[in-house]
Amino acid sequence: MKGKPLVAVVSAGLSKFGKMEAFTGRELFVEAVDEALQRCPDLDPRKDVKAIFIGMMSESFEHQGHVAPVLSDWAGLLPAPAIRTEVACASSAAALRFGIFSILSGVYDVVLVGGLEKMTKRSTLEATEFLGMAADFPFEQWTGVTFPGLYALMATAHMHRYGTTEEQMGMVAVKNHHNGALNPKAHLQKEVTLDDALSSRMIAYPLKLYDCSLISDGASCAILTRPELAEKYTDSPVYIIGSGQGSDTLGLFQREDLTSLRAARRAAREAYEMAGVEPKDVDVAEVHDCFTIAEIIAYEDLGFCKPGEGGKFIEDGIPMLDGELPVNPSGGLKSKGHPVGATGVAQIYEIFLQLTGQAEKRQVEGCRIGLTHNVGGSGASCFVHILKGG
Amino acid sequence: MKGKPLVAVVSAGLSKFGKMEAFTGRELFVEAVDEALQRCPDLDPRKDVKAIFIGMMSESFEHQGHVAPVLSDWAGLLPAPAIRTEVACASSAAALRFGIFSILSGVYDVVLVGGLEKMTKRSTLEATEFLGMAADFPFEQWTGVTFPGLYALMATAHMHRYGTTEEQMGMVAVKNHHNGALNPKAHLQKEVTLDDALSSRMIAYPLKLYDCSLISDGASCAILTRPELAEKYTDSPVYIIGSGQGSDTLGLFQREDLTSLRAARRAAREAYEMAGVEPKDVDVAEVHDCFTIAEIIAYEDLGFCKPGEGGKFIEDGIPMLDGELPVNPSGGLKSKGHPVGATGVAQIYEIFLQLTGQAEKRQVEGCRIGLTHNVGGSGASCFVHILKGG
Repeated sequence: MKGKPLVAVVSAGLSKFGKMEAFTGRELFVEAVDEALQRCPDLDPRKDVKAIFIGMMSESFEHQGHVAPVLSDWAGLLPAPAIRTEVACASSAAALRFGIFSILSGVYDVVLVGGLEKMTKRSTLEATEFLGMAADFPFEQWTGVTFPGLYALMATAHMHRYGTTEEQMGMVAVKNHHNGALNPKAHLQKEVTLDDALSSRMIAYPLKLYDCSLISDGASCAILTRPELAEKYTDSPVYIIGSGQGSDTLGLFQREDLTSLRAARRAAREAYEMAGVEPKDVDVAEVHDCFTIAEIIAYEDLGFCKPGEGGKFIEDGIPMLDGELPVNPSGGLKSKGHPVGATGVAQIYEIFLQLTGQAEKRQVEGCRIGLTHNVGGSGASCFVHILKGG
Repeated sequence: MKGKPLVAVVSAGLSKFGKMEAFTGRELFVEAVDEALQRCPDLDPRKDVKAIFIGMMSESFEHQGHVAPVLSDWAGLLPAPAIRTEVACASSAAALRFGIFSILSGVYDVVLVGGLEKMTKRSTLEATEFLGMAADFPFEQWTGVTFPGLYALMATAHMHRYGTTEEQMGMVAVKNHHNGALNPKAHLQKEVTLDDALSSRMIAYPLKLYDCSLISDGASCAILTRPELAEKYTDSPVYIIGSGQGSDTLGLFQREDLTSLRAARRAAREAYEMAGVEPKDVDVAEVHDCFTIAEIIAYEDLGFCKPGEGGKFIEDGIPMLDGELPVNPSGGLKSKGHPVGATGVAQIYEIFLQLTGQAEKRQVEGCRIGLTHNVGGSGASCFVHILKGG
């Protein structure tokens, strides 16, 4: 299936990201679906949408499992059958992959994929605990380590091996906040300076407050169909031409190397091969910057630069909005926010806007090939998708 | 794809079900995978298994989310990428459906699907709370209702409308305990009399202790491949010829009728149509008897008898092991046990054994077409699969 469109994305929607005090998770999901349906007036939701696949990380935030049929119901899509997927912060990329398989299988012709997380209902301490469940219980959680600590281990390993600096990590924060300030749906729409980033409160050395993504509420969705049906629903479809997934050990202690994510390299290889595309062909990317070091490692794992050169890549300005390969034009998890279950499809939403010229102030001019990179936990799961403009 | 095999099941495995104090969920999963691999010596797990899809209901039991890659790792299947599905007690039927789609898509040729739940680590009160998350938080959980209460509402509605009796529900318990006593992997391997059932402690009128399924630990798996590759791995494959899914509102209060599950009727219709099979063609079935009333409703929703005649169906002995259409030869959720995430694929395991003549003391002679029916929560989700012997 090399280079052949797998599915068409005919619409996408995103709720406002942030601390959305007045809204439950299901209401945020409805907000995302409403946007997608408004972009796609020729689609009759109850008749055309044959199934929905939803990523959500944790039942604990809202004390609500079995969320998939609730979302089908509240979004007005019943009787569309619904399934939830969970692979930590990559939950909705898994839902997307399920949706792609379901269409390729010939069983469905139109499906809605998406994700959500309502994280701010509970205290930051509780959120930290619930997120921590994505690490290994007997061998990681038990020691008291939380996610900033796990990524701090990767950061110090990368610094030690390659000389990556705190300044380079800070530059990722500055870039992503710059982009997020241009995105009306972003959680933290404000610029920060390198000085702000470097002088912010230490969380887990070397990661400071501005090296960490946000605890946010939000939901995302995209509507997929068979490529040959795309024109029925839109004049400007985007095609998914590659989908890759990798897994790895959950525990960091089991891995040979902390400076790279094997799951990400595997996912990227599968996606590039399926798409018949090379890293140099990518015009715009949304990558999983749960911590700034994660974005630097992503540059390397995705082949945008060589291993160890991620720090230099940001220092050279290549991933800036006006650079050679803009990364996280949306503001990324860092500034747009990271409602974990929503993130994977929120990346698809951004690339959909970019490839159809709808990204307004943060539009990357002339982009044709986009990539998304969504990581679960500390890298035991990764999904890479490659999209092409119509 | 009417009547055409979708995928072949070339092997299956099941851990012992019960209160497995010495084992974590991941260890039970390894036990299930080991059995499946032993049945299938020509399969090289690390080379041949291309992906795994796992159903698990709740992260809360073991304080462990992101469980899919852990299972791939512990079962020796890495680098096979792994995804978890969740739709309450139907979580592993959803994993099976993902596996089927993934093979039909052409992306994978061999995948492992399965499920697990480790429920007895926590107190019964905690287990009741965690299971309760599968009901609607704002409109059901909040009122204090738990699952026995929700199914009691269905039971009284069925009694009121059709004259179904407590004795008929008790007969379901007697039948399933009889079968479970013949199953060495069952949680409660003991016969009960109708008197035992009717005189057992009241839980939620009219449901008594013996009307309720068990809180169990356990894991299940099945290995799927493309039909044309089946002979490479086994001499006695079973084929999945129909897969159906239905969803409905989560809240019972939103439904027009409490005596039938719309999601089950939808799932059955899709599966029967895909398989080109009618209810009368089914030789053996595993249905979701989380409560005895649920099995009676299942007879009706699956078309084994007319609406309202489920009570008479059991009274007439049709679903007995030596009856015309044996239902739950494994002992069902009632006696085999109900580690919720494992149940859907545990049903596939039983039908695989039955259709390949490996069910020993509980073998249904001459069966050729089998059916599984797996319900999530109080019926907002349902999956029906139809299998054919090779």
